[in-house]
Amino acid sequence: MNISQSAEWLLSRDNFLILSHIRPDGDTLCSAAALCRGLRALGKRVYCLENPGITERYLPYLSPYHAPADFTPDHVLSVDTASRGMLQPNAGAWADRVELAIDHHMSHVPYAQDSCILPEKAACGEIIYDLLLALGYRLDGDCAGLLYIAVSTDTGCFKYSNVNAATFRCAAALLDAGAPHVRLNRIFHRAKSRARLALEGYILSHLESYREGKVILVTVPDTVLRQLGATENDTEDIASLAGQVDSSVVSVTLRDLAGGGAKISVRTSAGADANAICSLLGGGGHKAAAGCSLPGLSLEAAKARILEAVDQAYKG
Amino acid sequence: MNISQSAEWLLSRDNFLILSHIRPDGDTLCSAAALCRGLRALGKRVYCLENPGITERYLPYLSPYHAPADFTPDHVLSVDTASRGMLQPNAGAWADRVELAIDHHMSHVPYAQDSCILPEKAACGEIIYDLLLALGYRLDGDCAGLLYIAVSTDTGCFKYSNVNAATFRCAAALLDAGAPHVRLNRIFHRAKSRARLALEGYILSHLESYREGKVILVTVPDTVLRQLGATENDTEDIASLAGQVDSSVVSVTLRDLAGGGAKISVRTSAGADANAICSLLGGGGHKAAAGCSLPGLSLEAAKARILEAVDQAYKG
Repeated sequence: MNISQSAEWLLSRDNFLILSHIRPDGDTLCSAAALCRGLRALGKRVYCLENPGITERYLPYLSPYHAPADFTPDHVLSVDTASRGMLQPNAGAWADRVELAIDHHMSHVPYAQDSCILPEKAACGEIIYDLLLALGYRLDGDCAGLLYIAVSTDTGCFKYSNVNAATFRCAAALLDAGAPHVRLNRIFHRAKSRARLALEGYILSHLESYREGKVILVTVPDTVLRQLGATENDTEDIASLAGQVDSSVVSVTLRDLAGGGAKISVRTSAGADANAICSLLGGGGHKAAAGCSLPGLSLEAAKARILEAVDQAYKG
Repeated sequence: MNISQSAEWLLSRDNFLILSHIRPDGDTLCSAAALCRGLRALGKRVYCLENPGITERYLPYLSPYHAPADFTPDHVLSVDTASRGMLQPNAGAWADRVELAIDHHMSHVPYAQDSCILPEKAACGEIIYDLLLALGYRLDGDCAGLLYIAVSTDTGCFKYSNVNAATFRCAAALLDAGAPHVRLNRIFHRAKSRARLALEGYILSHLESYREGKVILVTVPDTVLRQLGATENDTEDIASLAGQVDSSVVSVTLRDLAGGGAKISVRTSAGADANAICSLLGGGGHKAAAGCSLPGLSLEAAKARILEAVDQAYKG
């Protein structure tokens, strides 16, 4: 479905539950909250299912929209979620009842009755913005702020390669609508905890170089996180750090997977395809940013596997 | 003069020399180059006076526009230059002959016959963009790229508090016109040498906290720079790193002073006065950024002295 069909669909229904993705980021959480806020302003009953992975700094933005335990929706939506397996882990039976999936992932594997997929959008928040306009909702400052968080966190504050002219136009419209970007930039893009900075320090001090520096890899075990006093709150977007090396085309960040194994994030530049690399190991994502999980493998073994996959998919 | 008056003024004249400011940044250099490129496309003869402070990474973007030694203009312009004293140091007699100053500094002190000052613009490059439109010039990708460098470098890639909706609209238009933002972002906002990143890693791993984290201090001895393979090129703006700690109000960076002793940089936020702190040790600067030198002291002894000075001047 396109934007206007999705808007029609929403307008003709009521009692929605919105799902977000596992290990939630600013885009999925604030896209969900913004859609919730907009639909409520139009008189709808709608909640977000609380995401158990939500980090502290997003909680104040999401908590007004969290569903009460006894809420039973008539319709279930998802935002920014590329596959059924990526839905928040507490989705339970709702995971099989998603009627409309709104997403911007190129690797989207249909799981909902209907989908509104726009892979040209840098952030799912941009789709929500277009959708809210199509719904006839005039954004207030709070809703614009939510979408500003969604778009700015998914683009490294407008620095990543997914940014395009439409992203900037959306940002301009959000500021016009009253998004408090100066305050939000300070919270989401500038001030960092000491543990976060120590973690960045560790990562920048432990970069490994392969293929004349075109491939940069770093391993961040949970034991290191604990030593540095870093929590999950401090790990957001750490996968972007290794890619700062001027020679790098492919950068890889390995972490412990909950339950045993390795969780791998791949970032690429200069035309290398992160999605192609991760697909070789059963993962996926975007061209410039993708990921995969290798349950049961040690970080050392996973490192060998991902380096093989890089060699196979990136010949540059 | 407003934009359209400035455009009229330029259209009715020819043979221009464009001046930029001392210690040039991306905004002044690339605003000058973009204006030059646009006016040339309209058939004008126009050059930029080579700025002796230009750094290596800007040279390829500016060199096509540098004036030959024997060029004698009929009209002299300046861009992004807030006062006569801020003009590039080799401006010589041209400094007294500026006919049109195009600038966005709120602190602009008139020195040209006519001025086009728009302090609401985040970057001078935004004014040049409007001016080129008013001149009837249709930007090519190279010109859009120059203005993208100007706007993105003056806004910390759209992260600083000077960004407004018009800034984002300008950026959207520049991408539409073909600005290669992905490549430019890598060059100007992302790519760093491995030695630079290792140095950042060292600094972030060696932050010391005083007074419940309000004061953050780091010592960066030359021996560490040598161990990391870092050169003076890799040390640009390292004094800003410690100030990222969310709790910090005063951040202090100590380095070896050439010839023996300590060189100290102080950065402050939230109203603390770096100038007052450094003045106690014979140094000075601005409220948010200042420095001092303590010849003959070891880094350890200098650390004790600067912490005393911080305690004396900052009571918060």
